[in-house]
Amino acid sequence: VFHDLPLFYLIGDPGLLRGVAKKMSSPPPIKEIAEPAEAADVFDTALPILPIALAGRVKPGRPNTRHATAVMAAIEQAVSHARAGAAAAVVTNPIQKSVLHKAGFKHPGHTEYLAELCAAKRSPVMLLSCPGLKAVPVTIHLPLQEAVAALTTDLIVERALTTAAALERDFGLSPPRLAVAGLNPHAGEDGELGSAERDIILPAVRRIAAEGIDVAGPLPADSMFHAEARRAYDAAICMYHDQALIPIKTIAFEFGINVTLGLPIVRTSPDHGTALDLAGRNEADPASLISAIGYAGLIARRRRRFG
Amino acid sequence: VFHDLPLFYLIGDPGLLRGVAKKMSSPPPIKEIAEPAEAADVFDTALPILPIALAGRVKPGRPNTRHATAVMAAIEQAVSHARAGAAAAVVTNPIQKSVLHKAGFKHPGHTEYLAELCAAKRSPVMLLSCPGLKAVPVTIHLPLQEAVAALTTDLIVERALTTAAALERDFGLSPPRLAVAGLNPHAGEDGELGSAERDIILPAVRRIAAEGIDVAGPLPADSMFHAEARRAYDAAICMYHDQALIPIKTIAFEFGINVTLGLPIVRTSPDHGTALDLAGRNEADPASLISAIGYAGLIARRRRRFG
Repeated sequence: VFHDLPLFYLIGDPGLLRGVAKKMSSPPPIKEIAEPAEAADVFDTALPILPIALAGRVKPGRPNTRHATAVMAAIEQAVSHARAGAAAAVVTNPIQKSVLHKAGFKHPGHTEYLAELCAAKRSPVMLLSCPGLKAVPVTIHLPLQEAVAALTTDLIVERALTTAAALERDFGLSPPRLAVAGLNPHAGEDGELGSAERDIILPAVRRIAAEGIDVAGPLPADSMFHAEARRAYDAAICMYHDQALIPIKTIAFEFGINVTLGLPIVRTSPDHGTALDLAGRNEADPASLISAIGYAGLIARRRRRFG
Repeated sequence: VFHDLPLFYLIGDPGLLRGVAKKMSSPPPIKEIAEPAEAADVFDTALPILPIALAGRVKPGRPNTRHATAVMAAIEQAVSHARAGAAAAVVTNPIQKSVLHKAGFKHPGHTEYLAELCAAKRSPVMLLSCPGLKAVPVTIHLPLQEAVAALTTDLIVERALTTAAALERDFGLSPPRLAVAGLNPHAGEDGELGSAERDIILPAVRRIAAEGIDVAGPLPADSMFHAEARRAYDAAICMYHDQALIPIKTIAFEFGINVTLGLPIVRTSPDHGTALDLAGRNEADPASLISAIGYAGLIARRRRRFG
């Protein structure tokens, strides 16, 4: 049924899934499984689902704190399967954080929650990938003013080294080539438009180069994302959220995915949000989720070979 | 010779131009003129050039403060022709500001210099245009931290109204549709990732709408520049330089141009810099300059019809 995708199973509410499937012109068969190992036998003929029941009926597009427990249980189960080796990777769907916050979810985002579940030793890194571009924001979910203030040479170096290792291990890009963006217009124009390039970013680039990594920068952010410029590097190290996300979503809105680096497990996700306005209408574009599942399989296979 | 382009003439050093032309496989004939009115007779058979002699020999790619006077004289002459009605528009080439600064140039940029030469009453607005996207940065050549601090509701409203008027008058887009970007990740995510959207940008959007203009925002900047999203508006009002320039240069690096709004004259320019590394090698891509000349003609013709 899903012959282009690696073997996967869903963790969620079977009733909800069957209801959604009914709206499709040719819905896939769905079959409940009791544990991950059963997925392989089912996958050729049906979508395997490991059931976690929701607390009640779902109104599509209407977030409800009653469902928060089941949502968190599904994530926790997926992580525990991956940590135990029963699954090779976790692919997460977008969550409605505001609902989870109200139900006691304490984390700024999905990724930080996963890091805690995995007892990760270093802070996780968000790598965004689409056909033609990989980009890593050094700072992520902070107001822009705070993101600028949070930039340090150490942080840039840490993110860049994690990224370089992942390009090699997870994507087979060896030796990896990094491009580091400037923060200010024209990368500060020799200090006329800001000093972060000279004081924070250039020292980071030098330390990254001293580790033997092929790295360029700080580069003017506006001219590093067109097709020809992108051929010169494997990943862009960006200083703030939108500096990475604007080019990714401009180039390939449908196919961007998020890969979390620095976790002991493989984790990918689509790079879009919950799109509540499209919920239950069978109109959402699944391209990003399909890419995320595909890449999770590829990365898991490469890590096994590498490790 | 230049049959796709509107009638134009060059202001510059004829010797330099002839030297550069020699490197081309089929160089265009070049003919000196004594005043703008002569250009029409020359243009069908040669590139008309109004001579301003440089102070000495030019080494391509080596900026020299000796040439600063001639560079500034060329700009001043172009503006004076346009103000006198001898030319319908000015197209400027990139200048090496650092050299001009050393020679006493007091302006933060080319555009501010033009505004002074024109005795412009309001501050000029930079509109970037490429096939598929027009974008206006509300703040321009400031370090990012200062750009964030410089954002005010008044400034956003002023830029938006100038832009809306120009879309209608200069580009024939009527009624004009604006999209206003947020400043922070996810446009602040309901205040969780910043307050500028609520305190500064949303009040601006309401005031723009109250002027009867079709306006949306504040929108998450990362998801407003893909092809489908762009169909919903005619120009994006962006909060800082790279928020506007990253999508423009990512989508169409070769064809982006800069149109200065709020001047009494029509002025366009390519949206790239001097590219000293390519100087004198006959390798630079002229696409952006050609677009800038073409658009200068179109805008001048529309303004004449409108005015």
